[in-house]
Formats: sequence, structure tokens, C-alpha cells
Amino acid sequence: MNTLTVIKIGGNVIDDPAALHRFLRAFASLSGAKVLIHGGGKVATQVAEKLGIQTTMVEGRRITDQPMLDVVTMVYGGLVNKQVVAKLQALEVNAIGLTGADGGTVLARKRPVKDIDYGMVGDIEEVDSGQIQFFLRQDLTPVFAPITYNTAGDLLNTNADTMASAIAVDMVRHNQVTLIYCFEKKGVLKDPTDETSVINQLTPSLYAEYKTAGVINKGMIPKLDNAFKALQNGVSKVIICHADELASAVNQGAGTTLQL
Amino acid sequence: MNTLTVIKIGGNVIDDPAALHRFLRAFASLSGAKVLIHGGGKVATQVAEKLGIQTTMVEGRRITDQPMLDVVTMVYGGLVNKQVVAKLQALEVNAIGLTGADGGTVLARKRPVKDIDYGMVGDIEEVDSGQIQFFLRQDLTPVFAPITYNTAGDLLNTNADTMASAIAVDMVRHNQVTLIYCFEKKGVLKDPTDETSVINQLTPSLYAEYKTAGVINKGMIPKLDNAFKALQNGVSKVIICHADELASAVNQGAGTTLQL
Repeated sequence: MNTLTVIKIGGNVIDDPAALHRFLRAFASLSGAKVLIHGGGKVATQVAEKLGIQTTMVEGRRITDQPMLDVVTMVYGGLVNKQVVAKLQALEVNAIGLTGADGGTVLARKRPVKDIDYGMVGDIEEVDSGQIQFFLRQDLTPVFAPITYNTAGDLLNTNADTMASAIAVDMVRHNQVTLIYCFEKKGVLKDPTDETSVINQLTPSLYAEYKTAGVINKGMIPKLDNAFKALQNGVSKVIICHADELASAVNQGAGTTLQL
Repeated sequence: MNTLTVIKIGGNVIDDPAALHRFLRAFASLSGAKVLIHGGGKVATQVAEKLGIQTTMVEGRRITDQPMLDVVTMVYGGLVNKQVVAKLQALEVNAIGLTGADGGTVLARKRPVKDIDYGMVGDIEEVDSGQIQFFLRQDLTPVFAPITYNTAGDLLNTNADTMASAIAVDMVRHNQVTLIYCFEKKGVLKDPTDETSVINQLTPSLYAEYKTAGVINKGMIPKLDNAFKALQNGVSKVIICHADELASAVNQGAGTTLQL
């Protein structure tokens, strides 16, 4: 079976041109088929401010009204996505920038309004893994912005972590898949203030122990729940690592590796 | 041989949501393989103004400095391109939004500085018609924003008319190609103030006559020179028509048809 590496890169790396360049060089050097999903970064908030569009937060979560969706589409789907694609082309990776709407790759539906109306936010319904596999077979490297679409022709803002795991899970039909979350820390830490306290291996039982002991804290829990769910749905391995340690995470076990 | 229709839609249609919707419905209804290239419209200028970025014009031409390139990438490559793609998906066209950087489809080089430094503007070097043909064979409909890239990893602002004709010309390797320019007039007019004065057929000799007689004026000349050049390079037919008359231009001869 083919191997595939699905990598999510966080917004903080997108915001730092030097860090982004280092990351893209490491990404370009990875052998085998790969898919990149990028987050947004602060540029969208900055552009929205300059355009006089207010960021509405409800219970700590950003609400995506139509003007904010337009900004997200401009910044994530346009500026960030195309800059990453052009830089990868210069690194001899034949990248193709996509939102979920492009080629119908990631269909979503607008999140139903319950207690909170999140606005133009998409919950993923279906990944067209056949379409993505078709790009990979042509030696194209898909680069996804965290935007999906619905059958009514709306674009929808979508969480990049969720998009990465949904794509990874669906791609197990065609590949042995490793999912890598690159962020600003060296992995899952026992002590958030100590970068040397990386937990190298996490299994579901170890994860449960760390949660009970309060070692793994609030912020990491949704990310890890999501990661273990991906493993339960057929992804072979999940790695959580620093964006600067992508190569050593893949080859020498840096970061935190999650397996069943 | 396969037939292919390459259609360029101007910025004034992009700026008018109702007109854009009518156009996209007609585009979706066209049978056979097709490629869309869209212009920009006024949104980029408006966004630039709001962001406090000044539009620099030299001898009537817009200069693309880096901040303006970022705006163009956001608005053309992001907002406009992805909205068009999502709307086409709703019309059951499996559209895929591209800049020239995506899949390495349209490589350019930064225009050399002579009398004027146009900034981050690209002159097209090479169209990868094999890559575009590969999308078409998969029943994908490429939708191009007028942005290209160079081998250094820069994005470059590129004239949409030029991009449409370059793509059309290169696609003759694989297809019998018709190139259609949709704009705000009913075709090439004998009298610019009279929409009923459409010239139905233009050959090189007729075109020369009209130019000598002053019937065809300044604004149309670069467009028509470009169109005849496409014919000389293997495009079978060029049509210039109103965006609302796409269907009748293709099927019933509305607009102006250019043939050798």
C-alpha cells in the first residue's frame, strides 16, 4: 500500500516568514506522497481590523459572519495559500492550492444553530479521497486552506485541525496514513513550561492516566481526542511536534507519537 | 480531436453579483470541456483603499508593488476565485480554482524594467497544457485567477486577456480550441454608442480595413491584435460577446466572430 503523510501547520508558523520558510524546506524534503493543511494566523484578524470589520467572539470562539468569511477567504484561501504554493514550486514541489470547494474535495454543511450561531462555519460531511488520490497519482501535492463549501454554493470557515484529521481518515482507503500536527511546542509536554518534558509515546491508556493525573491540560484535550479518533478510524500514526522538527519527527522520533 | 472552450470573463461582470450569476449559469450549461479565466474587478481597488494602500498609475497603467500584489492575491486568487468555484459547484460543475502557480500551470517571469517598472507583473513564459489537459480529462473545470508565478517563488500579477489567449494557444496541442472574450458590450461595434452595430464577422483583411477607416478604435486594438495572434497560433475561432449572450454566441452566432 502507498504511504501518505498528512501535515497540518499552525497559524503561528504562517505568521513568521522565516519559520515558514524553514518548515516548507523540511516539508519539501520529505519523501513520498504528502498533503499540507495550513491554518490561518493573525493576518486575517489584522486585515479585518483594517477593513473595519469587527471580530465577534462568543464564549471564546470566533463567529464567522459574511464580512469575516470574505476576509478568511481572501487571506487563507488567497494570500496564505498561494504564497505557500509559489514557495513550494520554487522548492520543486508541484503544489496545488485548494479549498474544499476546489474539485469538490471537502464538502461540509453550515453548522446548525443551537445555543450559539457560529455563522458561516462548516462541519465536514464528506471528503472526496478519490479526487485527492488522483492529484497525488499525478505527483501533485495538495495544499489545503481551512475553507469548505456546501451544496448551496456557500464557502464555509472550517477548523484546520479538524480538516486535517478528516482528510487523513478518508485517505486510509488508498494509503497507509501518518497524520502530523506541527505547532509551536516540541510535542505534548508533561510540564507546559518545560520544553524538555516531551511525552514521546502516547497510547490510549497512557493518555487516560495523564488526563486523570491532570498532567495533560485543557488546551491539548480536544486536539488529542481528535488525534485518537483519527487512529481509531484507520490512521496508522499521529505525530505532534514543533514545526522546526518535522524532519526529525518523521525520521528520528522527535515530538509525541500517538499509536493505538 | 476534443473540443475545448476557453472563456475570459471581465471584471465588470465580477463586480455585479446578478450579472455574475447569470453568466455562471450560462457557463455551466455549455457542453464540452471548458476553462474559465476571470478578471479582477473593482474590489481589489476598494480593498486596497480601505487598507490604506495607494494605487500607483504610470502612463495609465497600474503598478503592482508588493502590498498591491498581496491585495490582488487576496481578492483575485482568494475571494473572487473561490466564490466562483463554490457557485459553479452548486451548478454541478466540478470547478477547480487555480493561479498559474497551482500545479505549475502558467509560469511567468517578472517583467524587465525598461522605461517603467511595473513591479510584480508577470509576462507568461510557459503554459503547462499537459497539466491542464489532465484536469479536463478528470472532468474538472479549471477556473483561473489572473496571477502567475516565477521560478523564484514569487507570485506575479498578470493581464487576464493575455492569460486567456496564452492558455487557449497552448491547449491547441490537445484540442480544437474556441476562445471567447465576454465583456460589457455586444461585440466589436462599428459605432461604440450603438449596441446594434455589432460586426458579426471579422477576418484579418476586414480588420485592417476597419482600422484604416478608423471604425475600430484604440481600446479594441490590443484586444483584437491579441485575438488574431491566437488564431495565427492555432486557435480555431475567437468570439467577442456580451457576458449575457454567451449561450447565443456559442450556438447562434451572437457577438463578433474572428476567423482567419
